[in-house]
Amino acid sequence: MTVATPHQTSPVPHTQGRFISFEGTEGVGKTTAIERLCARLDALGIEYVRTREPGGSTFAETLRAILLDPQTDITDDTELLLLFAARCDHIAQVILPALARGAWVICDRFVDSTIAYQGYGRAHNDPEVQAKITQLTAQFVPRQPDVTFWLDLPIEEGMRRAGKRGAADRFEQEAMDFFARVREGFEACHAAAPERIVRIDAAGDADTVSQRIWQQLGMS
Amino acid sequence: MTVATPHQTSPVPHTQGRFISFEGTEGVGKTTAIERLCARLDALGIEYVRTREPGGSTFAETLRAILLDPQTDITDDTELLLLFAARCDHIAQVILPALARGAWVICDRFVDSTIAYQGYGRAHNDPEVQAKITQLTAQFVPRQPDVTFWLDLPIEEGMRRAGKRGAADRFEQEAMDFFARVREGFEACHAAAPERIVRIDAAGDADTVSQRIWQQLGMS
Repeated sequence: MTVATPHQTSPVPHTQGRFISFEGTEGVGKTTAIERLCARLDALGIEYVRTREPGGSTFAETLRAILLDPQTDITDDTELLLLFAARCDHIAQVILPALARGAWVICDRFVDSTIAYQGYGRAHNDPEVQAKITQLTAQFVPRQPDVTFWLDLPIEEGMRRAGKRGAADRFEQEAMDFFARVREGFEACHAAAPERIVRIDAAGDADTVSQRIWQQLGMS
Repeated sequence: MTVATPHQTSPVPHTQGRFISFEGTEGVGKTTAIERLCARLDALGIEYVRTREPGGSTFAETLRAILLDPQTDITDDTELLLLFAARCDHIAQVILPALARGAWVICDRFVDSTIAYQGYGRAHNDPEVQAKITQLTAQFVPRQPDVTFWLDLPIEEGMRRAGKRGAADRFEQEAMDFFARVREGFEACHAAAPERIVRIDAAGDADTVSQRIWQQLGMS
């Protein structure tokens, strides 16, 4: 995967870039929806940067490799600080410069994923952890997305799509419980910022889901 | 330099470890003072861990290498988050376990250095930066040192000792101004926590300075 490569496609003028993030649990179809949106922007001649978190900038991708390495043995607090260190760099090096030159930014996961995965999934909505995430966001995230598409699907369906649901043994059940909390986290994000986060019904085929997204962006 | 190696020297009983940090600008003699304190603890048969920041644990030393690499091009915010990520790991992996088993922890720099170097030296005591450091400390540093020795010396004398003071050209003068702000930062730390931070006059020979420190620890 090429990360944060600018696609300069045409001289079609556009005065203002839009910062769009995609969120959701496993198997909801984020990657496909992002690919289709990017193809649509290509067709419309709109410059965009496709990027992701954790990572998205050279330095943040270095931290991503550390964060995802199974050998990395760090506490939850250390992980949280590294996630925000990566995010800080990503914002400064990639997101803000792209928006400043009028490009769109299409980002696979952003702050809401930290709230959902670290805050709800792992920490069971522990108020102390949520306070840390809120504070780090307030102090180190100068810009939230203009629009966030939360692709929502029942957990069982997402797991099935992701090919991760076999027999519901004890570990599978634990994974299901974890993702159920993550989904609850996205629900809470949505309730807290309904003006920014759009819940997209991710059931149905890719065309249908993409149409729902484009409609929200006024490009269907 | 061996970092965070436990020195188990004798079976002399001691019920409670002490967490001691050393702070100060360039050339004030921290290294010598720490070496002499450790030799003294050896002689007294007190177990201790000698450590440092940034770094001190395996993972934090990895981050230290990134932080000190001249090729690393990151924003001040990203640096601040990495410093606290390293500190979090250092506290969890090295400092708290050592104190829990009754060992002393002798640490070369801790939070006060972040306030002095990042907050005062680089950010000119910018209230926004200081608020970030205060908040990160409150949420991610569960334990401050029991005693902090701030080795204080006029900047010119420290620079001379560190062999860094040649002709006072423009860059030298900038460096002098920077370290003057850092010293001001340590003064502010001392004023804010006089019950924890002991100002040690770092003028005089190493024996004299060490005697001043040991006296404060009741071991002269």
